[in-house]
Amino acid sequence: MDEFALIDAFLEAFDVAEPRELVLGPGDDCALLALAEDEELCISVDSLISDTHFPAQAPATLVGYRALAVSLSDLAAMGAKPIAFLVALSVERPDLRWIRELAFGMRELAMPMNVAVAGGNLANGPLNLTITVIGSVPRGQGLRRGGARPGDQIFVSGRLGEAQLGLARAREYREPDLEPLLRAAPGSPLHPIRRYFLPTPRLELGQRLRGIATAAIDLSDGLLADLGQICGASGIGARLELARLPLGAGVVVEGAFSGDDYELCFTVPGSRTADVDALSEELRMDLTLIGTTVEDEGITCVDAAGKPSAVEPHGFRHFR
Amino acid sequence: MDEFALIDAFLEAFDVAEPRELVLGPGDDCALLALAEDEELCISVDSLISDTHFPAQAPATLVGYRALAVSLSDLAAMGAKPIAFLVALSVERPDLRWIRELAFGMRELAMPMNVAVAGGNLANGPLNLTITVIGSVPRGQGLRRGGARPGDQIFVSGRLGEAQLGLARAREYREPDLEPLLRAAPGSPLHPIRRYFLPTPRLELGQRLRGIATAAIDLSDGLLADLGQICGASGIGARLELARLPLGAGVVVEGAFSGDDYELCFTVPGSRTADVDALSEELRMDLTLIGTTVEDEGITCVDAAGKPSAVEPHGFRHFR
Repeated sequence: MDEFALIDAFLEAFDVAEPRELVLGPGDDCALLALAEDEELCISVDSLISDTHFPAQAPATLVGYRALAVSLSDLAAMGAKPIAFLVALSVERPDLRWIRELAFGMRELAMPMNVAVAGGNLANGPLNLTITVIGSVPRGQGLRRGGARPGDQIFVSGRLGEAQLGLARAREYREPDLEPLLRAAPGSPLHPIRRYFLPTPRLELGQRLRGIATAAIDLSDGLLADLGQICGASGIGARLELARLPLGAGVVVEGAFSGDDYELCFTVPGSRTADVDALSEELRMDLTLIGTTVEDEGITCVDAAGKPSAVEPHGFRHFR
Repeated sequence: MDEFALIDAFLEAFDVAEPRELVLGPGDDCALLALAEDEELCISVDSLISDTHFPAQAPATLVGYRALAVSLSDLAAMGAKPIAFLVALSVERPDLRWIRELAFGMRELAMPMNVAVAGGNLANGPLNLTITVIGSVPRGQGLRRGGARPGDQIFVSGRLGEAQLGLARAREYREPDLEPLLRAAPGSPLHPIRRYFLPTPRLELGQRLRGIATAAIDLSDGLLADLGQICGASGIGARLELARLPLGAGVVVEGAFSGDDYELCFTVPGSRTADVDALSEELRMDLTLIGTTVEDEGITCVDAAGKPSAVEPHGFRHFR
């Protein structure tokens, strides 16, 4: 199989309108982008490895969607507007159909998010899908992890823990058509599988949080690990109220600390919580107050009565 | 082994001054970059897979240097000034020493080229090193592949074929210290190994060719394949004079078509060849006229007498 035939198959199947910032797309030594004078470029890279980040037998449509979604989620956490992405794909035995399905999966997410493919690389080796995403923020307005102050209110978007619930069933899921999953409503049997394979990067929320949130992160490794990153970068701690955690259908409280939800966790000063409530209403999205930042480092979980609680949460560890 | 300890080990060993364009480096959801108003961003991604793009037992210092070099070579081919890069590393059994050596190898090249690390990703899986490089060019001045016109002169930098000569010995090479290779002079036994492991991205040459070259590409897959990209993108053909090809020490003429040299191949209008000669003298670098572009598509090789020659050149094929 010829490398260029595979690349052409990907690009043809992808077929998404190019944003104005993309001066030169795939096919040259580099892609070229031009930003407005008052914008900063946001860039992030994520790798998905077979059997670690997705089941080896998963349909390529789902793998493609998931790969782009988790990468775009980093732009969301920065408050960025997405522009384009690069795909570095390593694959052992490439075939046109698999490549096309991968492209279709990415396209399904890229269309509504208005993201183009700017370039990539195709290599022969164990399956590895590494996506570099590019976006922009107005200068100085990126949502960093290190901006939280003691006394800020901690919020989380959406509902937690369903992706992890869905993982066991996702391993057996072989349906390449995205429609049944995208239609699955909360509470339906397919919904947790959707939440695992087809997470929604919270791009609009992230952009709307600029000027409101003091810090933000997306939940990939689990709430404690990721909130811990905000606390570490900000030099503070946090007090989480377990009774407030927004649990997905069928999720027990410990499940709220599992990974793969790709919701946003963010901090806002007490004076701005009304803005968060208004945003929740406007975006029709749960934005739940789950605790408060504190001066002392470390994260404490308290129960409904305010007593420290001994949950044993485990997030995703990259190397065991 | 903890993911964050490995990332810290990499960043500590890397330790290169950050360029002014890098507003926010590693450690957040995204890196942030700011360009000047009159600049375009150049971006490219390359993956190196163990046993395909480097010998599996190669010292990590050499793998790191080579990975960054081949990625930066794409910026050189665009005429870009390098700024920063992102490292997505997937590794089966990570250890601190290997990660540090990888960083040292990258640092050795990044220091003189003034390139910082902007971010990355560390995952558990088969060895895969995917590097995204970021650079800038003045708006509209990027060296594209599609700008060549019939009658342009075709040039190549440096000497060809040595990297491929070095590959056989590179497979057995286990010395992690970069110094002996970097000191190896042309003609010395170590020089071909240097040319394989430690190619020099022709960044200064690329930047100086802006406004002179009509098209440019870096030689990764081999002269015919890569010049073929210029021809295809420009809708033209080429006539190569075999007797003019600048061969490395010990390289036969067919060897000039092998891959991995990472020299630049570029086209200039006849009126600008004096600029190329002046540049060759100033940069103390061979820039050799090797042929002419023609209207008819396809690449013809001719011998010293001008007769079509039946070489059977093979470049690198990504999937066999």
